[in-house]
Amino acid sequence: MSSSFVRTLREDPADAEVASHRLLVRAGYIRRSAPGVYTWLPLGLKVLRKVEQIVREEQDRIGGQELVFSALQPREPYEATGRWQEYGPTLFRLQDRREGDYLLAPTHEEMFTLTVKDLFNSYKDLPTMLYQIQTKFRDEARPRAGLLRTREFIMKDAYSFDVDDAGLDVSYENQRGAYQRTFDRLGLPTVICRADAGAMGGSRSEEFLHPTPVGEDTFVVSDGGYAANVEAVTTIGPAPLDAAAMAALPPARDVTTPGTGTIASLVDHLNIHEPREDGRDWQRTDTLKALVYMLHHPDGSTQPLLVMIPGDRDADPKRLEAALAPAVAVPFTEEDFAAHPALTKGFIGPVGLGEDSASGVKVLIDPRAADGTRWVVGGLAPDVHTIDVVPGRDFTPDGYLEAAEVREGDPAPDGSGPLHLTRGMEMGHIFQLGRKYAAALDLRVLDVNGKSVVVTMGSYGIGVTRAVAAIAELNHDDKGLVWPRRIAPADVHIMATGKGQEVYDEAERIASELQARGLEVLYDDRPKVSPGVKFTDAELLGVPTSVVVGKGLTTGVVEVRDRASGAIDEVPPQEAVEVVLTAVRAG
Amino acid sequence: MSSSFVRTLREDPADAEVASHRLLVRAGYIRRSAPGVYTWLPLGLKVLRKVEQIVREEQDRIGGQELVFSALQPREPYEATGRWQEYGPTLFRLQDRREGDYLLAPTHEEMFTLTVKDLFNSYKDLPTMLYQIQTKFRDEARPRAGLLRTREFIMKDAYSFDVDDAGLDVSYENQRGAYQRTFDRLGLPTVICRADAGAMGGSRSEEFLHPTPVGEDTFVVSDGGYAANVEAVTTIGPAPLDAAAMAALPPARDVTTPGTGTIASLVDHLNIHEPREDGRDWQRTDTLKALVYMLHHPDGSTQPLLVMIPGDRDADPKRLEAALAPAVAVPFTEEDFAAHPALTKGFIGPVGLGEDSASGVKVLIDPRAADGTRWVVGGLAPDVHTIDVVPGRDFTPDGYLEAAEVREGDPAPDGSGPLHLTRGMEMGHIFQLGRKYAAALDLRVLDVNGKSVVVTMGSYGIGVTRAVAAIAELNHDDKGLVWPRRIAPADVHIMATGKGQEVYDEAERIASELQARGLEVLYDDRPKVSPGVKFTDAELLGVPTSVVVGKGLTTGVVEVRDRASGAIDEVPPQEAVEVVLTAVRAG
Repeated sequence: MSSSFVRTLREDPADAEVASHRLLVRAGYIRRSAPGVYTWLPLGLKVLRKVEQIVREEQDRIGGQELVFSALQPREPYEATGRWQEYGPTLFRLQDRREGDYLLAPTHEEMFTLTVKDLFNSYKDLPTMLYQIQTKFRDEARPRAGLLRTREFIMKDAYSFDVDDAGLDVSYENQRGAYQRTFDRLGLPTVICRADAGAMGGSRSEEFLHPTPVGEDTFVVSDGGYAANVEAVTTIGPAPLDAAAMAALPPARDVTTPGTGTIASLVDHLNIHEPREDGRDWQRTDTLKALVYMLHHPDGSTQPLLVMIPGDRDADPKRLEAALAPAVAVPFTEEDFAAHPALTKGFIGPVGLGEDSASGVKVLIDPRAADGTRWVVGGLAPDVHTIDVVPGRDFTPDGYLEAAEVREGDPAPDGSGPLHLTRGMEMGHIFQLGRKYAAALDLRVLDVNGKSVVVTMGSYGIGVTRAVAAIAELNHDDKGLVWPRRIAPADVHIMATGKGQEVYDEAERIASELQARGLEVLYDDRPKVSPGVKFTDAELLGVPTSVVVGKGLTTGVVEVRDRASGAIDEVPPQEAVEVVLTAVRAG
Repeated sequence: MSSSFVRTLREDPADAEVASHRLLVRAGYIRRSAPGVYTWLPLGLKVLRKVEQIVREEQDRIGGQELVFSALQPREPYEATGRWQEYGPTLFRLQDRREGDYLLAPTHEEMFTLTVKDLFNSYKDLPTMLYQIQTKFRDEARPRAGLLRTREFIMKDAYSFDVDDAGLDVSYENQRGAYQRTFDRLGLPTVICRADAGAMGGSRSEEFLHPTPVGEDTFVVSDGGYAANVEAVTTIGPAPLDAAAMAALPPARDVTTPGTGTIASLVDHLNIHEPREDGRDWQRTDTLKALVYMLHHPDGSTQPLLVMIPGDRDADPKRLEAALAPAVAVPFTEEDFAAHPALTKGFIGPVGLGEDSASGVKVLIDPRAADGTRWVVGGLAPDVHTIDVVPGRDFTPDGYLEAAEVREGDPAPDGSGPLHLTRGMEMGHIFQLGRKYAAALDLRVLDVNGKSVVVTMGSYGIGVTRAVAAIAELNHDDKGLVWPRRIAPADVHIMATGKGQEVYDEAERIASELQARGLEVLYDDRPKVSPGVKFTDAELLGVPTSVVVGKGLTTGVVEVRDRASGAIDEVPPQEAVEVVLTAVRAG
């Protein structure tokens, strides 16, 4: 290490929020060069390459063929699929010296599609699975936590190409298996969550989420095995009543509710002035809360939107966004309210509204508000609410929307029990893109009957850079990193900790012999550095096995240490090589 | 190959100028995605990775430590060294969402320097040699010839850090040896040429040029072993005379030379009207030609510049540019001439001019015009030339300048014989950067005496992408590529060329067995593709050894073909594996 480009730092980086960031920087694995942009120092690069290789081997095992696209991509294909616009400020855009528009690719759907279109033209060419392990660029609004969210990072992105949906299902399952093996080999427990395909279109979509308190995703699991990210959780409402049953319910009636602009004040007012016929108190769950947006469609058109959710819940912006994508909902402005006088602030309800009504206000309601349920809603006039409004009888919504927050204890939609909310980190994502990109870029092949058909695609990503962070995050203690053996930057860390030449000679001999036996050795030969500093550095660096050649040499022993367990074996120096080899082979 | 992402093309790409470009595209190794930007298809990627690995091993052998910097770099360090401006339009610049300025790094001198500054602070940490094999971006004005000049490419860039010049010399020699071994293993003959360090500053600088007619660099070699790029060729003038000897030469005299605005008309005029005292004809070599520029210094200041070169030679813009860098010479405009009436167009000479003269015109002359030589020059008045002007007697130049073209047959400066002009491709460049970057970014260490000293650096680059092109260019025939074995995308190419199932079974068996023996196999199992097409594709793809399992099987033979020699061996199928293994091991 005296000549290695490895130097540890005593101080935590000022911006470190999480252990992996703090330790990877302090141990000299990575250095920040700009916000969300990192240098891989020699030891970090070794770890990165090992993670890449595991990912590569599992892609190869299912017949994946590796290629590499350029980071620099021309605008045109991304224009053809709409992503030049849709990616917004997250896309790094630039111009060349001829003022041609380029981007730094955040992913390469377009290029994979175009390249297959270039080379293939028959069902006989399919299925095919292509992948790359390549540097991606995304101008994240908030890069964070070291390698967890960066602006330049390495990703494995794979794409499958099939002639029909049955083929896509097979490709998808192959990747699903490859992902399970990959994360297993990386030592990263993951939960496979249903994911909202959202703007990506397509059908089946699952995320591999690694449960960790530093994750920025929330997902839900039930004891019965349901798992989904919050965007994908569906709400099961009560069974709807038929028209006759609804007609038998109490009629809707307006009540005067001055000063009840909030759900809490409304419930208080009702409990004082409008006691229920059954004696039960009014609850927030008896009300529907109104949220008003201007909906911006991709084609540039806009539409007022009223969303009604149970009064005891907040809207979840991520669920709302996913449910409405690719349209974007912007909260109503004062100008919008002025232009739609029917929407009386604080007293908004659905009755009389709707896409086809005079107001043109689209009404989307929570699935809990099924036909035949009874609700208190705004009366669309100052100081008026309406009690016993029944969807399906008193108004017909334009549709249902998953906009309300998911809560701990909510029922899993598949009946597998109450949901638990968990923090996780997205490590991989597989989904059935379907024909979106192939149709946009006209990727067709002749099928077995000689008919031209649009190819169907799957998309499969693993964040390689993030995986390094996740592994570091999962494998550390208060002294430093504790690398799993197959990811570690070296097999063994040898320290010469005495003053005499014989200590260095013996350490050197052991290092050379282990190297000759095919092991990767990190040798700390720094002179005039105290044993304590060397021990501390070794713990920080986190190589699984270390050998200390020091003052024990005079009594005929060296120490073989296990980083994970902290166990120290004293062995005769001539046995050290075999002891280390045994430990390494044990994996 | 029926399921491989390998498809050959029958048509040459429209923009192909050179064989490597034509063949790499047709054989399905690369695809263009934008001008000067390429995709590496699976077979191309295998070749690229093998070239990278050879480069890596030779860097590791001399103690190089690999790391990887990001492509995205903030403006500030490049501003500190002046490269943000100096790189001009070749630098891809972009802004992030906060309007921060970034660039896509063309090389990483700044980051290497800053990272060493970050981690090291003592002479004990040095010497160190760091390198990366990483994707670079340069917005070339004229990307050309497939992979020969691209805008996104892979380069190995290494930097050495030493405490003193003697250390730098050692590091430089280490890299020089590594480069020789690297190009030797890549099978690329190179000539080590002296190179002009130019704007890079520093002292020793050599290019590894691969002689090839498709090269875009011109370099010179002598039979005695001198080699240099044209920018670096120095001119040896005659020995200067002393003042007494000069005083004894005939005095300068003005002659009237109407209508002699060109050297040719001047010589004709002199031979008619001013015959020489020795009876010899006037030659163009007796004259000095005047070139006038406005010199733009990096600090923004300008200065008129008169360059005098022998009348029989043209100026070489690249030599002029290199000799004046970092200043830039712009030819005089009409406005410039108007502002400097002393410079009479067509009759410009050096007498009376000079930086310290009233004119302020700097005078730089060719080294052949040593003190005591005799020349015809312009007389700085209409229709006047001056004969027998002697530098050192009649005027004192402000310096000498290498601006004249180098010609076939010119003497090598080291006396090793006449120079030959050769076309070549720059494969590598090593040079002693010295303290330019370390000083600009304040990289210092404490030396052995505890004194803070600026570190001295070397810079060592290899164009990895270009090396793939050069290897392809060197190794092809009219049928396709002929890969050297250690670079080839596969060890053996197996073709099943018959119709019966037994042909496919036997080909499959041989392929599996060779794979089991550790060989990389490309297996052409395409059904309903004619033998002729398979042979043609195999020749185009260029795998060194191929095995044809076809109709010979009925008489108990398969063919083992050698791509380079065209030799065909008929061997019993059960011996095919051993024959192939022997060929592969022979290397």
